[in-house]
Amino acid sequence: MTTGLYVGRFQPFHLGHLDAIRHILEQVDDLVIVVGSAQHSHTLENPFTAGERITTIRLALQEANISPGKFVIVPLPDWDIHKVWVAHLLSQTPAFQVAYTNEPLTGRLLKEAGIKVEHIPF
Amino acid sequence: MTTGLYVGRFQPFHLGHLDAIRHILEQVDDLVIVVGSAQHSHTLENPFTAGERITTIRLALQEANISPGKFVIVPLPDWDIHKVWVAHLLSQTPAFQVAYTNEPLTGRLLKEAGIKVEHIPF
Amino acid sequence: MTTGLYVGRFQPFHLGHLDAIRHILEQVDDLVIVVGSAQHSHTLENPFTAGERITTIRLALQEANISPGKFVIVPLPDWDIHKVWVAHLLSQTPAFQVAYTNEPLTGRLLKEAGIKVEHIPF
Amino acid sequence: MTTGLYVGRFQPFHLGHLDAIRHILEQVDDLVIVVGSAQHSHTLENPFTAGERITTIRLALQEANISPGKFVIVPLPDWDIHKVWVAHLLSQTPAFQVAYTNEPLTGRLLKEAGIKVEHIPF
Amino acid sequence: MTTGLYVGRFQPFHLGHLDAIRHILEQVDDLVIVVGSAQHSHTLENPFTAGERITTIRLALQEANISPGKFVIVPLPDWDIHKVWVAHLLSQTPAFQVAYTNEPLTGRLLKEAGIKVEHIPF
Amino acid sequence: MTTGLYVGRFQPFHLGHLDAIRHILEQVDDLVIVVGSAQHSHTLENPFTAGERITTIRLALQEANISPGKFVIVPLPDWDIHKVWVAHLLSQTPAFQVAYTNEPLTGRLLKEAGIKVEHIPF
Repeated sequence: MTTGLYVGRFQPFHLGHLDAIRHILEQVDDLVIVVGSAQHSHTLENPFTAGERITTIRLALQEANISPGKFVIVPLPDWDIHKVWVAHLLSQTPAFQVAYTNEPLTGRLLKEAGIKVEHIPF
Repeated sequence: MTTGLYVGRFQPFHLGHLDAIRHILEQVDDLVIVVGSAQHSHTLENPFTAGERITTIRLALQEANISPGKFVIVPLPDWDIHKVWVAHLLSQTPAFQVAYTNEPLTGRLLKEAGIKVEHIPF
Repeated sequence: MTTGLYVGRFQPFHLGHLDAIRHILEQVDDLVIVVGSAQHSHTLENPFTAGERITTIRLALQEANISPGKFVIVPLPDWDIHKVWVAHLLSQTPAFQVAYTNEPLTGRLLKEAGIKVEHIPF
Repeated sequence: MTTGLYVGRFQPFHLGHLDAIRHILEQVDDLVIVVGSAQHSHTLENPFTAGERITTIRLALQEANISPGKFVIVPLPDWDIHKVWVAHLLSQTPAFQVAYTNEPLTGRLLKEAGIKVEHIPF
Repeated sequence: MTTGLYVGRFQPFHLGHLDAIRHILEQVDDLVIVVGSAQHSHTLENPFTAGERITTIRLALQEANISPGKFVIVPLPDWDIHKVWVAHLLSQTPAFQVAYTNEPLTGRLLKEAGIKVEHIPF
Repeated sequence: MTTGLYVGRFQPFHLGHLDAIRHILEQVDDLVIVVGSAQHSHTLENPFTAGERITTIRLALQEANISPGKFVIVPLPDWDIHKVWVAHLLSQTPAFQVAYTNEPLTGRLLKEAGIKVEHIPF
């Protein structure tokens, strides 16, 4: 069984995120969805709390008929020490074999930690 | 729809936890399982990372035939400011109406924040 | 007896703040003055330490013949988790019944925590 | 004018604290009362929040007919870096010339920072 | 060229530490000495600041005729998230190929991060 | 013996830094080089980790024939409480008598802490 990782802020969750999740779930059996910048809320750039974002993602994936057994959602705060963010990510998430991201810094940090990284086609 | 909250360290997850979750899911439609002390691992008292504990809970509930659509698992670190722990909990979890705990401090902090708290029968 | 709350950075304390405090003390019996962003100093936007700001406020209110028994001053640092800031505020301040602020985010966070919020007329 | 500093946890505030404050106010014109370990509450050793302790101190000094213009109360959290605690103390408090403490570590840290330290007679 | 890593609290630095460093410098060309628990000082268990410990180590190694070009000393605070401690270590130290430690938790954390760990003979 | 302090981010270390170090080592016997903003890496403004910067500085000073016994390199993270940054600096560094900096805020903070500050000629 292969588990994938998908990191986003989801402020808010939109159809592009849903398409990405659909695409990743064709490649892997199980998906860890990380709600990044989990400590932020109540700002223009980050309006929703991590809890509200988890709720939205669950509802959106339910409506999209994606089985709740195929994914788990994990909130994760930012760290100003970038190398430490990856270590924290690894300690807070179930084991995964491949990470999906189009964000260059996230991809680089994951690769430097020895993690396989794949791009998400648009 | 009623959502419940259940907080534990799950070091490790055992049959008592499973019984508690079964009991709570008879009272509510949806359950937020909070993996507390999420920052700890690699010690005698807290051997497992939050990620490992999430994995164990998912597997245990799957084996127990509890539908993955009925619960969501959220890791949460401790805070030495107790009042702040509740605020952090509320920001990181989906909305819930009632919390289940037998731990006196957790119960008191949740009640002081205006949250309904129920005991779990053994 | 009614206690009010007034939050500001007071960088520096000016006549507008004094007018606000005079106005609030006509509505309440006792006032908690919170020196926000207490961790900042030595910058253009935040030149003074929390301690220097406390000194200035005490002197200004003494000169304005406001009785020192009518108010208490509490320094409070910022938190990047906005929801947590309110919890920290509540743990660090004497009990109060109404908060006075014209700052939208502060007002919204206080209201979401169930606190009565009043505007300050200019 | 001389300002003194007095640090305590005040869990709870008792007659010994009141005697100490009376003694110090015979030596100085103005007193900064620091409520230490301000982040703690809801435990056996630290039952009260900083806000509750501020309230108690104000009431106790009012009952003891100590003028509210003679003191200011400042909550201060602990730091595990001891040298940093003194720096934080200095940034959060009005200027003072002499500190009163019978606690050896507090006294040593203040002295190392160049601050005059006096014992409090029992 | 091979670089080794040696972690200790050095409270205080003693002959056992010197022997260990001599032993390691027979195996490697260059040594990173990490002063752990760098945030602690002024306690019975951790009397010295990181700066004082760095001074002591430099003097002791100079007296022992160990060339200052053969080692570098890096202070590092503790983290309560153990997995994150390793990531922080890796971000704060020059690259190294092998770590020397007899402390089981440190050894396990380093091995889990893919780092070669050697014991130090007494 | 006089020890100097020199603080920089060294992102990256360049000839200007080398000239400064040469100049300072004409005034003092020993130099503490502080790698500031040690927590940052992987950004445009702060590309290198503290560990990478330590490596670069050691190599550059070796090539410049500056004896490794004349300096020690200490990484130091930023603090948003400026006054606390100086205290942290003092706890993490060997004792020094004079600091060299052209950065106004650093100079001011060091002077306020009673430390002698010298400018570096270009």
